Amino acid sequence: MGHQTGSDAGGGRLGWDVELVPDERGRTARPEADCPVEVALAALSGRWTTLVLRELMHGAASYGRLRERLPEISPKVLAERLRALEDRELVLRERLVGFPVRTSYRLTTAGEALRPLLVELYRTGAELAALTAPEVRA
Amino acid sequence: MGHQTGSDAGGGRLGWDVELVPDERGRTARPEADCPVEVALAALSGRWTTLVLRELMHGAASYGRLRERLPEISPKVLAERLRALEDRELVLRERLVGFPVRTSYRLTTAGEALRPLLVELYRTGAELAALTAPEVRA
Repeated sequence: MGHQTGSDAGGGRLGWDVELVPDERGRTARPEADCPVEVALAALSGRWTTLVLRELMHGAASYGRLRERLPEISPKVLAERLRALEDRELVLRERLVGFPVRTSYRLTTAGEALRPLLVELYRTGAELAALTAPEVRA
Repeated sequence: MGHQTGSDAGGGRLGWDVELVPDERGRTARPEADCPVEVALAALSGRWTTLVLRELMHGAASYGRLRERLPEISPKVLAERLRALEDRELVLRERLVGFPVRTSYRLTTAGEALRPLLVELYRTGAELAALTAPEVRA
């Protein structure tokens, strides 16, 4: 979505704008796919996606290694998530030389760029958990 | 989802754990609603939600004021989003004294805690946009 700059910009709004809306992409008033906030949220979308990203942040891994690290994810879902991350250019699929041929997955530079966001998501979620009642997060 | 600590923890993994998994909530291997990352993502879920939060970060606002700031959101969706944010204890609904009675919405302390996350989402999304091809974000 976009980050609108209102004509009634005041001190608080100005600070917010300067902090969050450094360019024209932030000056719309509707959800838009090219708004940076939407781009970042889309990169993390999908059940298991952040877990797969986390495992790849430990380093490149084969499909089998990822299955070992995430034993509860179904092969179908893992394959789907990896393909979606490849399509978004967040993960790179590489065929390893040798016999039998094996496939390795690693984060691209864009994928690595998600690390501080995941850290901030964890930090913020822990803060929300401390500030709100358990039932509101069910 | 949880953030698993593998038995094969290496330097990279250790650094990641120390950074991202400071407590037991991060030591599971499946998506879980009480994982801080899930809690944070759930708080932002829903089309228009981050835009409504952004407007309230400028300060408390009446329903009508929010409609002015987000003219393209339907009354029904705005009401739904505000109700969902109230249910999550991120927004507080207050009846203003006077005639006619008006309703004001403001962020709770938990709602304000989302500000740095939204800033990080914007920063990361802008970085992804610079690192990936436009079509992959469509």
